This record gives sequence, C-alpha cells and structure tokens, in this order.
Amino acid sequence: MSIKIGIAGYGNLGRGVECAVKQNPDMTLAAVFTRRNPADVSILTEGVPVCRIEDAADWKDRIDVMILCGGSATDLPEQTPALAQMFNVIDSFDTHARIPEHFANVDAAAKKGGNVGIISVGWDPGMFSLNRLYANAVLPDGKDYTFWGKGVSQGHSDAIRRIEGVKDARQYTIPVESALEAVRAGENPELSTREKHTRECFVVLEEGADAAKVEEEIKTMPNYFVDYDTTVHFISEEELRKNHSGIPHGGFVLRSGRTGWDGENSHLIEYSLKLDSNPEFTSSVLAAYARAAYRLSKEGVSGCKTVFDIAPAYLSGKSGEELRKMML
Amino acid sequence: MSIKIGIAGYGNLGRGVECAVKQNPDMTLAAVFTRRNPADVSILTEGVPVCRIEDAADWKDRIDVMILCGGSATDLPEQTPALAQMFNVIDSFDTHARIPEHFANVDAAAKKGGNVGIISVGWDPGMFSLNRLYANAVLPDGKDYTFWGKGVSQGHSDAIRRIEGVKDARQYTIPVESALEAVRAGENPELSTREKHTRECFVVLEEGADAAKVEEEIKTMPNYFVDYDTTVHFISEEELRKNHSGIPHGGFVLRSGRTGWDGENSHLIEYSLKLDSNPEFTSSVLAAYARAAYRLSKEGVSGCKTVFDIAPAYLSGKSGEELRKMML
Repeated sequence: MSIKIGIAGYGNLGRGVECAVKQNPDMTLAAVFTRRNPADVSILTEGVPVCRIEDAADWKDRIDVMILCGGSATDLPEQTPALAQMFNVIDSFDTHARIPEHFANVDAAAKKGGNVGIISVGWDPGMFSLNRLYANAVLPDGKDYTFWGKGVSQGHSDAIRRIEGVKDARQYTIPVESALEAVRAGENPELSTREKHTRECFVVLEEGADAAKVEEEIKTMPNYFVDYDTTVHFISEEELRKNHSGIPHGGFVLRSGRTGWDGENSHLIEYSLKLDSNPEFTSSVLAAYARAAYRLSKEGVSGCKTVFDIAPAYLSGKSGEELRKMML
Repeated sequence: MSIKIGIAGYGNLGRGVECAVKQNPDMTLAAVFTRRNPADVSILTEGVPVCRIEDAADWKDRIDVMILCGGSATDLPEQTPALAQMFNVIDSFDTHARIPEHFANVDAAAKKGGNVGIISVGWDPGMFSLNRLYANAVLPDGKDYTFWGKGVSQGHSDAIRRIEGVKDARQYTIPVESALEAVRAGENPELSTREKHTRECFVVLEEGADAAKVEEEIKTMPNYFVDYDTTVHFISEEELRKNHSGIPHGGFVLRSGRTGWDGENSHLIEYSLKLDSNPEFTSSVLAAYARAAYRLSKEGVSGCKTVFDIAPAYLSGKSGEELRKMML
C-alpha cells in the first residue's frame, strides 16, 4: 500500500518534494498541480501527469496527501484551506504573525472535509520549533537562542535586487561565532540583533551603475540591513553563477538551563542543521509529515495540526516494535 | 490543578526528580517511597512524607504519576509493572535488549489498571532516541552516528573498583574529536569502537597495591576497556573527591544524508547535550514526560508508551495556542 502524493506548485520546493517521494519507498507521486500551463511544466518523474490546479477536485479519490509548495505570502493562505476540504494537506507556512489565523482557517476546512492538515512544516518553523519545545519542557529554567546560517536568505537577496543599478544579488546570513561560543559556554548572554548575525552580499551591477551608492543603499536599508554589520562584494555575473548558485542554509537552536535544588548545575542542549539545499531539506520534512497525515487520517483524525501535535512514531514507516528495537 | 508526583526510589535520580518537581509550577511532590527505613531517609522538600514502597497502594488516589528512580538491572523490571497497575508511571529503563519484554509487561499491567506507563525516558534512551527517529524520517538516505561523553560512566567506574588493589575510581568516556569532525564533514566514515571513543580513568589505589598490575588489568578488561585506547591516572583520594566528584555527561547524535534526484546534496543534522549532572538532566526529562502521562491519562489513554508515541505538545504546560505563538 503506497501513499499517493500530490504536489501543488512546482518550483524549488515542489521539485524537492518530488525527489523526497522518490527516496521514500512507501510513497508514490500521483500528480503535480500547477497554475501554469501544464504543457509548459516538465517534471523529473516519468509517467506522472501535470495538471491544472483548478482540476485538483477530480483527483479527490486518487491522492492520499497533497503537499503544498507555494509561498506563504499569498499562495498558502488561500490554497491550504481550499485544498484541505478535499485532501489531507501539508504546508510550510512560515509567516509567523499569521499562523493563528491560518491555523483556524485550515482547521475549519479540514474538519469540514474530514481531513488532516499539518501546517508550518519544514525546519524553521518545523524541526527548530520541535527542538525549542522539547528543550523548554526539559529545562524550564533556561534561556533560548536561535541562530540562522550560514545560508542564503531569499528575502534579503530579493531586497538587494530591487535597488536601482543591481542586476543580480545573493545574500548570506552568517551567525557570529563568538556569540555562539558565549552561549555554548553557558554565559547566557543578552545578544542584540547585530551581535547575533552578520550579512554578506554578493552583488552584480548593471553597466554604469554607481557601486558606492548601491553599497550605501544596501547598508542603510531599514529592517533588512541597517541593524547588521553588512559586507558588500561586487562580482561578475559569471562569478555569481559559478560560486553562488546553491541554496545552502542551516542554523542552531540552543537552550542553556539550570537544574538542582538551587540551580547549581548547568546544561546545554544544541540542535543544528547544515544544509546544502534549503528547499530539498524542507521538502524532506514535508514528506515525512505527509506520512503522518496519511496515518492519522486512517485513524479517523481530522483538523489542523502542527509538528507539536504529531507523535514522532507517525513520521516513520517502521512499526513500533522496529522503532523500539532500532532507535530507542 | 497541580500534578501530584510520587517518587519511587531516592538515590541520585530520585533527588533529581525532587528538584525537577520544584522547577515545574504545575507539579507538587506528594510522597517519596523507599525500600529503606523511611526514618533513615531525609529529603529536601519540607513537609513531604517518606513512605515504605510496600505502602504505595495506600496512595492510589493521592498520586497522579509515580516516577520510578530505581535501576534497570533488577529494580525496574519488577517495580514498573507492579506500580503501573496502580499508578501512571514513568521510568528510565535502559537495558536495550530487554526493552521488548519490559514494554510488554508494563503494557499489560498499565492496561489492567487503566493507567499510562512511559518507559525508557531520559536522554539515551530518550532525547537521543527522538533525534535518531526524527533524523531518519527526514533523511531516509543517510547514516547515523551516536557519540557519548565527555562524561562519567558509572558501569566502567564500578568495573575498575572491582579490581583488587583499587580503592576508588572514576572513568570518563570521551568522544574522539577527529571522528566527530569526519562525520560533520560529511565523510560518512566507518568507525570502529576504538575510533569513536577513548577512556580515561582516575584511580585511587589501596595502600601497597601494584600500580602497573592494576593498569594492565584495566586496559585488558574484556568488553569494558580492551577495545579502547585507555589512559590510567593514579591520584590521591583527596584529588578524586576534589576534581572528580561530579557526574557530568553528554554526547552527540548525528545523521548525515543526501537528497536530490541523484543524491547530489548533503545535509547534516546534529543534536548534542553537555550536562553538568547526568541524573538531574535525566530527572528533568522524566518530569516532562510525567506531565504527558498525566494528560494522556485524563484523555482516557492507557497502556505502555515510549517517547516515540508522545506528541511533543503533551510535554509542555502551555496550551496549543501559546506553543504556536511562542515556539513554532
């Protein structure tokens, strides 16, 4: 019995899910759904149809879990509730302030359809969130730290590209090593934005653009750069393509805390990710939670869930006996 | 509504649970149970009774969760099933080969009593197991590594103490840094026992004992030392007490894996613990799972569970809304 997966949206994330499905022997890709003309979309898996997203309803009985691969800004707030009426769904919604609203919408739609919807799945939100929760539950007297990077921030790269005179750009978020070390040493530092991360930008200029002016505009950009120590490198288009075409990312979740009758003992919990491909790792997490949605749905569960609500065993294709034997 | 906790067994672990209960505002220590004469057992919490373990049944309606703090060799295989008939129970059973049998015994007893039993809770088994499961589910094509230390191994320290001429001893298990680095670099090394950990021993000799002979006996001891590079230091009793009286431990769980259509991208997931007090950290995990057992029991669940079967949200005193807002 293979879990039949649908992919809604075929960009980097959708392609990542396609690769993840190939890696999981208990899953089969049933169809890919797109807002583009399906004839223009070429996928990796042979023999799998590409369909119009408007025709998703026709697949109601042929798809066990639909994995949504659109963006959080405009796609998912519409698509996840709409598709949750017809399918078990998984998304990677990451607009933190709107999670309560999104949760409520998906919950209502999923309950109406008798489906399971798991939202905000990936690594942050996702695996990082899980680690924050576990660490907080185990060490109630402590302090949390999250560092991101080294990795490409799509939002910051886009912000640079919008500057006049910029042809292309890639921005790396880099954790400050000395801040990380202070946390690991149990110093419980209070860290400002500037003290936690630096930003490094690789910029390709349009011909005739004023480099000094572009650098100034980047470094003083509110929200994105002004609160950080930012380095700007001007490079050629070839160099950008050659050395900066990947989408690596990662980061660290730490909690340092104290135990004992008078808090006399210190402990450090650290979780970290070093990812060659941000979208492919996110996709791999989505696939694991698709398995959970499928199994919960078979048990008659419906409604919206997050990673907090899913017992870990549901993510694995192995039985309880196997898990206890191999991983406990 | 405070969760009423009972502690069965008052050694390092029991005292750790007592401290953990103090740190969790939704828990109250109801009673401590001991096989010793209760009059001989002095606990830290004022006003809480110390009782004979044989009288535990009298407390059936006054304790929500009993946390078992005995040893895995002989205590828990008897006590956990016996107490699971009367109480929700948590234990830290860590004899890996006997987990299936223990699980079955606790499951039968807990179901008979209508209680929840969560076994093998702590950090390994426990938090390390969780991280193995999550990482395997997310990266199906990969390789697992667990390193322990730097930390005190009670079993190895005891083994040294049994040697003729040894008055006292403390053994540290130390991960080999170069092996850790090779794993982190994504080299997927095949590591022998000797390549993963070294063992460092601090030994106090009886007067007149033959140091060379003791050292030889340690280094050639089957199972415990012969497969490791072992260093032996002879020190005074004062030095042992001064510099080696703590019970630190910790370790690393890593999984390196590949994603992409042809496995072209590498990823590294790393979880690590650096613990001043092994028993206090274990106790803190036990306390968090006691909360989960209480809540599951209130929902009508019964039977034996492990950390794999518990949705993370059950560990936290916070509501779903709060968790989504603060930690997702």
